[in-house]
Amino acid sequence: MYIDHPASFTDYYELTMAQGYYLSGMHQHTATFDYFFRKVPFDGGYVIFAGLKELIETIKHFRFSEEEIEYLVKEGFSDEFIHYLKTFQFTGNIYSVKEGEIVFPGEPIVRVEGSLLETQLIETLLLNILNFQSLIATKACRIKFAAGENSEVLDFGLRRAQGLAGIHATRAAMIGGLDGTSNVYSAQRFSIPAGGTMAHSWIQAFDSELESFRTYCKYFPNSAHLLVDTYDTLESGLPNAIKVAKELEEKGCKLKGIRLDSGDLAYFSKQARAMLDNAGLEYVKIAASNQLDERVIASLRNQNAPIDIFGVGTRLVTGDKSPALDGVYKLSSVKGKPTLKVSENIEKITLPGNKKIYRYLNNDGTFWGDAILMDEEKFLERMHHPTFPAKKSSVNDMKFEELLEPVIKNGEVVFEMPPVDEIVKYKKKRFNQLNPEYKRFDNPHIYKVGISIRLMETRDNLLTLLKS
Amino acid sequence: MYIDHPASFTDYYELTMAQGYYLSGMHQHTATFDYFFRKVPFDGGYVIFAGLKELIETIKHFRFSEEEIEYLVKEGFSDEFIHYLKTFQFTGNIYSVKEGEIVFPGEPIVRVEGSLLETQLIETLLLNILNFQSLIATKACRIKFAAGENSEVLDFGLRRAQGLAGIHATRAAMIGGLDGTSNVYSAQRFSIPAGGTMAHSWIQAFDSELESFRTYCKYFPNSAHLLVDTYDTLESGLPNAIKVAKELEEKGCKLKGIRLDSGDLAYFSKQARAMLDNAGLEYVKIAASNQLDERVIASLRNQNAPIDIFGVGTRLVTGDKSPALDGVYKLSSVKGKPTLKVSENIEKITLPGNKKIYRYLNNDGTFWGDAILMDEEKFLERMHHPTFPAKKSSVNDMKFEELLEPVIKNGEVVFEMPPVDEIVKYKKKRFNQLNPEYKRFDNPHIYKVGISIRLMETRDNLLTLLKS
Repeated sequence: MYIDHPASFTDYYELTMAQGYYLSGMHQHTATFDYFFRKVPFDGGYVIFAGLKELIETIKHFRFSEEEIEYLVKEGFSDEFIHYLKTFQFTGNIYSVKEGEIVFPGEPIVRVEGSLLETQLIETLLLNILNFQSLIATKACRIKFAAGENSEVLDFGLRRAQGLAGIHATRAAMIGGLDGTSNVYSAQRFSIPAGGTMAHSWIQAFDSELESFRTYCKYFPNSAHLLVDTYDTLESGLPNAIKVAKELEEKGCKLKGIRLDSGDLAYFSKQARAMLDNAGLEYVKIAASNQLDERVIASLRNQNAPIDIFGVGTRLVTGDKSPALDGVYKLSSVKGKPTLKVSENIEKITLPGNKKIYRYLNNDGTFWGDAILMDEEKFLERMHHPTFPAKKSSVNDMKFEELLEPVIKNGEVVFEMPPVDEIVKYKKKRFNQLNPEYKRFDNPHIYKVGISIRLMETRDNLLTLLKS
Repeated sequence: MYIDHPASFTDYYELTMAQGYYLSGMHQHTATFDYFFRKVPFDGGYVIFAGLKELIETIKHFRFSEEEIEYLVKEGFSDEFIHYLKTFQFTGNIYSVKEGEIVFPGEPIVRVEGSLLETQLIETLLLNILNFQSLIATKACRIKFAAGENSEVLDFGLRRAQGLAGIHATRAAMIGGLDGTSNVYSAQRFSIPAGGTMAHSWIQAFDSELESFRTYCKYFPNSAHLLVDTYDTLESGLPNAIKVAKELEEKGCKLKGIRLDSGDLAYFSKQARAMLDNAGLEYVKIAASNQLDERVIASLRNQNAPIDIFGVGTRLVTGDKSPALDGVYKLSSVKGKPTLKVSENIEKITLPGNKKIYRYLNNDGTFWGDAILMDEEKFLERMHHPTFPAKKSSVNDMKFEELLEPVIKNGEVVFEMPPVDEIVKYKKKRFNQLNPEYKRFDNPHIYKVGISIRLMETRDNLLTLLKS
């Protein structure tokens, strides 16, 4: 379970609003909320959606525990309302894109329908789960993309993760495309391959580096990665690693790799490769770590640095300079009527009504663009730019897929959650359908997301009404 | 408890190294590790230390559960070692500075002594807890410093927190100086005041904004903060809030406040204050939110924006552009002998031996500077710059305090953890002892941290030995 007490993993105002809805008799009004984000993090061109499993599981178990009820009593919530909460369960519907799907700004990637009270009450929980995991899945995808399919990328981030965020950072990183993790807790829970090398302390604990390498290889003769930068990479670490690798060969064993953790990784990896190859150790892999991210890795690739394994930590599991996806959860319909929010920032005007997403495909199966349309619409002739109506495209003859599918119906889970490795496969397939211009790190092409004329008219009519 | 299974909340290599120590009979060698960071986040001048409570509690309960043992069996760890882990407990000593203490780069703020195996095994856990909470306590301190003691600063970050990181982000934010939170889960667990306002969805759920305000105030007549930017702040939100406030007055109640969540907060807060004051509503407070941090708040203060309450979210709970404190855990002594790591980056050379910290005070009680010295040293005549020996200062006549104190002795907790509000008081007192030049946001003065001549000689002798 994501959290032991999901009902209180929330903002206080969700509860005061819920009480207000309850006491005023509005709590059973029907409502729809959309989850969407406004800006792609990392100045990138796409987001990988993740976190659905935790969301579904948590909503399934969403109850108010005795301790939570006690707390609300102390806080002065009304008796009537508290009585209602004691048996509260989520009984609405949730539609979502698949985990691992590629998504874009403004798209209602999760749609929640139900009573006003229940749809409101899960807001904070939903945002907390989906914003973070989608952020990290996206970062991981970028990092793996830079490293290329032929190298391994491992998550070493637990020590610098934002506390308990480390648990799901690892899961999301795998969905994004990483190959394994050092995080034992998450490896165990999500069936992810775990591994690692050795710390500097291992080497320091011995009288000599050579002895430390020998001892480690005695116990891990075929899986050791020797860390070579504790004292002097070229003068000490590598010569000692080579010596031990040759000793292993005599016993019919093979040193797995060496790890570089400081200095210029392009320079040292080339030196290391040459020294290892000269010693006939072509099979010994080179792992590198130390503040890596997609740009550093791309630069190492450009310099032909012969690195086989990248260990990424801080900048993966925190999202580095973009540590949050700005996902929001906005009311789009109440009592069956579309509604919107205007706000003082134009870009914050929301799209009203129950909506769905069509993804249009090029003839080769790659993504052409997405349209947001009203749920009751079946077919679009064209889609329009959300804010420049004159900018429009015909989609009349194009193949399309509907992206939202039901995952919870009347409170019951109606979707079998695939294990992480299935999600990884789906993400890989979808990422292959995304053309390269959206994947580059500098000024990626902006993916087309349009809206139907009907949705546009609904929005504009509501705006006119509000201004009158 | 911080995490249900602390023993596996770790990097895989901690376990392979532990097995290596065990099988080679080195596991009972004595060892000391230091926790320290190298760089102050946010380009700031100080760090507020936080997370000690979670660390101590988790180490107290550090055991390998059955599921964890099973996992290690499957992973192929040795039977002998697994047998040893079944009854493993931490039996070492931990010395730490107090939670809420102001600390600086390079200082061994936590010292862990014990067997090589046990001190190694808690590395990832310790780093995960302390790095994150210290980061957020520091960010919160900066934000509260910008806002000033006369305004309230509230944590609204749960929806953008890095998943479960939200739990301890809130605790750390309080230690750093915030006044309350919207996070119900943490408020309940850490006895923190919780509160909030209302969401745009509340207003949208009604046929009119006025009706939505009236209904909320019916149920929360003395605690409502009305959100005024859903449709039009000056034309609709504020006039409606004023109308409802006057209606409340007739019933002997008082509107608590209004909230601005978009647009130019300096402009709108001034307009709002004038409109409220004109209506005789001087007591109605103005709350503001929307991507706030210490710099935005300082700018609003400079513009005399009449904001009483700041709601901070994303940039507080994630650390924004500095989402990790770079704390490390380094072996400084083994079998009673000092040790160090050299690496290919000079700034990564560590300080050997069992060390402590003296903080020297000016006559007015403010902090003058800190010295790192060997644990067996009692008194210093002078302290030296860590890398420029010629740069030294006499500390002969100065009053000083020792910062490290025992918190765990032979595995037993020997320190009574104060509740959050006590820690907050301590932090406040200490922050008052820090002179303003270290607190400013641009180019803060660098706080003096020196080392004793004996520590310097120990380090340099070891370096010479390694180079020979």
